[in-house]
Amino acid sequence: MDDRELLKTVMRIVGEENCRDDCAILPCGDQVMVATTDMLHKTTDFVDGMTDWQIGWMSAAVTISDIASMGAAPKYLLIAVGLDRWEQLAGVMQGAKDCCTRFGAQIVGGDIDRHGELTVVTTGLGLTSRRDLARREGAWPGDLVCITGVPGQAQAWLDGYKQFEKALFEPQPRVAEGQALARAGVSAMMDDSDGIALSLYDLMSVNTCGFAIDSAFVPRPDEVPEPQARELALYGGGDYELIFTIAPDRYPVAGVPCTVIGTVTEKRSVLVDGRPMEKRGYQHRW
Amino acid sequence: MDDRELLKTVMRIVGEENCRDDCAILPCGDQVMVATTDMLHKTTDFVDGMTDWQIGWMSAAVTISDIASMGAAPKYLLIAVGLDRWEQLAGVMQGAKDCCTRFGAQIVGGDIDRHGELTVVTTGLGLTSRRDLARREGAWPGDLVCITGVPGQAQAWLDGYKQFEKALFEPQPRVAEGQALARAGVSAMMDDSDGIALSLYDLMSVNTCGFAIDSAFVPRPDEVPEPQARELALYGGGDYELIFTIAPDRYPVAGVPCTVIGTVTEKRSVLVDGRPMEKRGYQHRW
Repeated sequence: MDDRELLKTVMRIVGEENCRDDCAILPCGDQVMVATTDMLHKTTDFVDGMTDWQIGWMSAAVTISDIASMGAAPKYLLIAVGLDRWEQLAGVMQGAKDCCTRFGAQIVGGDIDRHGELTVVTTGLGLTSRRDLARREGAWPGDLVCITGVPGQAQAWLDGYKQFEKALFEPQPRVAEGQALARAGVSAMMDDSDGIALSLYDLMSVNTCGFAIDSAFVPRPDEVPEPQARELALYGGGDYELIFTIAPDRYPVAGVPCTVIGTVTEKRSVLVDGRPMEKRGYQHRW
Repeated sequence: MDDRELLKTVMRIVGEENCRDDCAILPCGDQVMVATTDMLHKTTDFVDGMTDWQIGWMSAAVTISDIASMGAAPKYLLIAVGLDRWEQLAGVMQGAKDCCTRFGAQIVGGDIDRHGELTVVTTGLGLTSRRDLARREGAWPGDLVCITGVPGQAQAWLDGYKQFEKALFEPQPRVAEGQALARAGVSAMMDDSDGIALSLYDLMSVNTCGFAIDSAFVPRPDEVPEPQARELALYGGGDYELIFTIAPDRYPVAGVPCTVIGTVTEKRSVLVDGRPMEKRGYQHRW
């Protein structure tokens, strides 16, 4: 049982339409509010060596990244902290606050609870216009498939390449890039937090097309030898880059460094270097 | 160290103005959005004997109660579920959904995580007008202090009175009452989830006045002997009644059964039967 299978249980109960994007889409006057929640905790998400401040930063960043992937501006964060040691609270809160401040949001509410292990749940609210909202649905055959930054760095740290500590411990959500891409009219967008492969399968599940990428185009973490670098770049999780599709005549987008890694296909499949891409990456398992 | 002391740490970091009400208050077009988050988990909140459905119901209800206490209409719920056994997910989600449906809200997003113990974090969003927003601040000397329903029933179950199972396992937030009270112009309102005593101290902390209540007026759980019934009614937690202050000429409010239990005083103290009320009730401790 993995979390994508469990999501089907959730879909049956709450409705599929509420599980299609990185955020929920809510009317807010003449704007659109996007809302998302993320649960992180010590065993799974906070690796040894992270400071309390970094734990708070990461907890805010993952939620802000979901907002960025919709092309919205992060505005408000609510944070629930379950603590085994109350001494950690100040550091966690300061890290979350600093991440919010960096990306234009503020902490407006929260909850504190005594808990068996450090658990942080952040809920983020963002705003955008209906016109500038990016969604997972909308990819079109012939569109380019692109990614910001260098995927695989967070997983590289986990695999022993300690120069990538900041990538894993202090992720930088692509907030400005997300808004610029949405304004430029990307056809589909999400963040790649579970890795490129699972992200492409997630995109296919809400589109009627497929994807073909060329692994030679995908940027690799520096100083990691092949074939490990290719493996990390395609299947590593824990990054918060944006993966998006865009019509060729809208590319490139001013102010958004990124890389074309493939194209959208009519055929409903995910191919890498002409062969079916393995459907694996970061998943919780029970 | 208890959670009210820890809240001071949070206030220093995120600002006191974000910790004054049951919900954050956010502009949303020409309306007001209220937002709140609550973390519940097995060890502290889900007592033995609760079904998965009841766990989901309770998780949604506590957040919906915070929205009710602001006089707002619950609209959206996000739910993050940390699971040790994935088999519980369907029941929890169904309970949360049924509670949302009962009170006019819908589940719009969430997260699933593997966790050492069942942990549910719900974030609720509600809407109201600026005019009809109720807050903790605003109590005025001479106002009546009132409470809906019968406080102490949830704690009574914990103390062995098993006839109160529904009060603890399936709390019914006072959504319609909260909106009617806000429209009628209550001067201050919150829910009494930590008990009447702590609620009055919380109200005093954001007002310049005090409170004097008469314990003889406070409704008691049925079939519980004195003095235990008085103890439960004043200091028991886990209820989701509304405690509010209102100018005498605005009382009673049509359609809202409630009880006058005291008055707002100029003197900054919380008195019960003419003596200082003990500052105790439901608190997490570290």
